[in-house]
Amino acid sequence: MAKIAIMGLGVVGGGTADLLTENRERLRKSCGEYLDLKYVLDVRDLPESPYRDLIVHDISAIVNDPEVSVVAETIGGLHPAYDYTVALLSAGKSVVTSNKQLVSEHGAELLALAKAHGCRYLFEASTGGGIPVIGPISRDLSGNEFSEISGILNGTTNYILTRMKGGGVGFETALSEAQKKGYAERDPSADVEGVDACRKIAILAATAFGKLIPPSRIHTEGITAIRQSDVAAAASVHAAVKLLGRAIRRGGECFVLVAPFFVPDDSPLSHVDGVYNAISVTGNYVGDVTFYGRGAGAKATASAVVSDLIAATAGGGVSPVWETADEGFPTEFGTFSCPRYLAFSGVDRNAVRVVFGEVEFIRGAEGEVACLTPNMTERECADAIARLTVGGGQLLSAIRVYESGDRPEA
Amino acid sequence: MAKIAIMGLGVVGGGTADLLTENRERLRKSCGEYLDLKYVLDVRDLPESPYRDLIVHDISAIVNDPEVSVVAETIGGLHPAYDYTVALLSAGKSVVTSNKQLVSEHGAELLALAKAHGCRYLFEASTGGGIPVIGPISRDLSGNEFSEISGILNGTTNYILTRMKGGGVGFETALSEAQKKGYAERDPSADVEGVDACRKIAILAATAFGKLIPPSRIHTEGITAIRQSDVAAAASVHAAVKLLGRAIRRGGECFVLVAPFFVPDDSPLSHVDGVYNAISVTGNYVGDVTFYGRGAGAKATASAVVSDLIAATAGGGVSPVWETADEGFPTEFGTFSCPRYLAFSGVDRNAVRVVFGEVEFIRGAEGEVACLTPNMTERECADAIARLTVGGGQLLSAIRVYESGDRPEA
Repeated sequence: MAKIAIMGLGVVGGGTADLLTENRERLRKSCGEYLDLKYVLDVRDLPESPYRDLIVHDISAIVNDPEVSVVAETIGGLHPAYDYTVALLSAGKSVVTSNKQLVSEHGAELLALAKAHGCRYLFEASTGGGIPVIGPISRDLSGNEFSEISGILNGTTNYILTRMKGGGVGFETALSEAQKKGYAERDPSADVEGVDACRKIAILAATAFGKLIPPSRIHTEGITAIRQSDVAAAASVHAAVKLLGRAIRRGGECFVLVAPFFVPDDSPLSHVDGVYNAISVTGNYVGDVTFYGRGAGAKATASAVVSDLIAATAGGGVSPVWETADEGFPTEFGTFSCPRYLAFSGVDRNAVRVVFGEVEFIRGAEGEVACLTPNMTERECADAIARLTVGGGQLLSAIRVYESGDRPEA
Repeated sequence: MAKIAIMGLGVVGGGTADLLTENRERLRKSCGEYLDLKYVLDVRDLPESPYRDLIVHDISAIVNDPEVSVVAETIGGLHPAYDYTVALLSAGKSVVTSNKQLVSEHGAELLALAKAHGCRYLFEASTGGGIPVIGPISRDLSGNEFSEISGILNGTTNYILTRMKGGGVGFETALSEAQKKGYAERDPSADVEGVDACRKIAILAATAFGKLIPPSRIHTEGITAIRQSDVAAAASVHAAVKLLGRAIRRGGECFVLVAPFFVPDDSPLSHVDGVYNAISVTGNYVGDVTFYGRGAGAKATASAVVSDLIAATAGGGVSPVWETADEGFPTEFGTFSCPRYLAFSGVDRNAVRVVFGEVEFIRGAEGEVACLTPNMTERECADAIARLTVGGGQLLSAIRVYESGDRPEA
């Protein structure tokens, strides 16, 4: 019988404890032995909790118990999660986590620490909720060289964008609907400003490319500037606006970014609606593979935590090694190139054509000029916009266009 | 350095050899050591092949070489693949395979043989081509009780159905287009009659439920009877006709079947077009997760073969145990219940309503009565159809309607 501890009995920790209880017999089949919850570390006493008898307040109870070899960290945030994780790994105990902030900022160090102490640091639950993605990329697709991972990594923003499209409402209305349904926090900034997606794409990029880029060095835009008319313009060209995290390797270049994109209807990412997440991976043998499901929630995330508990308990398996990316990685963002949707006021089509060349004009809001540009770099686009607005025009929206390599043919 | 052998240098075997060569350095990173191809077993000499110097014709060269511990079987069919696999597993060598016929008919026995000899029998490549699905279900989702696995498991039929919808052509025309493009064989019967999908759903059902049902006991229908007007009727109610393999557990009942279904547009399976495959899994914690990608082809399938080669080389991992399903599993198909699309000639709406009760009439072809029924069992439906046709009506089409449990809310 394997003895388990959970640190942090919040939403995910509680779901994990419930799964260990409800699916106990199933887990014995998967694992070959029972997974027994021995401790729950929490600052509270939680007298109403079914797990109240397992509560401890001091990490040393777990660190010093030789019976416990695997611990789930579902505290979130940097401290004390970092300190507890270091103490456990240093004691040779494996740690599995849903903590995207910790993995995205200290993953390289914690993986090295686990390796040095012959235990494991696993983080399937940190990205994509219950959707298996870290495991499939690092194991099932490990024969491939990866050229891209792009995904809808945040359910809150995807719910808002889905409502703006389907319900025809503006950002503020969609956000307050999301808050009412419990899909958005009272302070929604980490979601709507792209911070959450940024941490997840950092983890995915490291999983695919072996280098962890500090989130502070990842170009990150949120969705607060998206207007209902932008969403309508996207629909008029058979696309949907989606907040994507993207990690792209092209030749010697590598780009990692979070930003809203026009996603064409023939991409598997375009039909991912509501709070769902999806991640597309491109490998040089497998082509495009997409993973789709619930990216958050107590039960879905618990499914991922428990699969890592099983893996850590079973033993074996190769832990990845992540380098910390140096200054040359990713490539300087000014050279990133893609087509763009732009909307202006105070200029005419002719002025746009003079500056941007062969654009495709599309249906924009009343009194605006909207167009799709050919491929241009960040720097070229900023320069062109500056030239256009110096003559009195105003840029209302600029959204990149997503082009995936591999499409169904039919 | 690990020494590998490939049996059968056909499409998948050739792709596997190419991947081992092209991604050699990448594989060393994933594996910790080089994967070295030492033998290729084939009946031919293949003097033009880059692998001609590795060719052997006698399995004993591989069985008796202690350097080789892992072998890829990409021969296909039952014999000699079965005999070679038995010889290798009995000698303690792990075998990884793309052979869906062999796994679906002898998987239980071969897994037991591998376990008895301390080696592994792995078959990610047998289902879904390059899409990771066996691994994710048996590892990343292994904390869940599964209630359903449903998927588009055959690219040929999905291409044909996609063309019938998008191109407005009939089955015969779409089939001959598929043959011209190399997506269908000259004898397409294994694909269009559902035999290929049947083998794959047998493997998926065994992976999720632990019991292997002989393909001969799985209710299997193909797509040869689907008319263009059925596809159009589906589109008129915001659905697409898709050939699905389904394994469903409801309470104490279990149903496994292959048949065309009306798949509503809000299901992730409905937008899977062309030769792509997708598999949706429902677990009691994770909810619905869908895996999408190229379900066939040399390179994609090689990606799956090689991930198993890596896993078998790395060691560790728990092999599943499959029971052979007894007569009570799956549940008697006559009790399977779902809504249905039906099209008749020679009857009026009133006659249909008298027999079927509260149906929803929909747009059918000229001179036909088309409707969607409420939930009814196979037996109830057959009885009702018999009653209706005894009065001179003719049943033109009967297609089940797919209802998944978990939908994006927005």
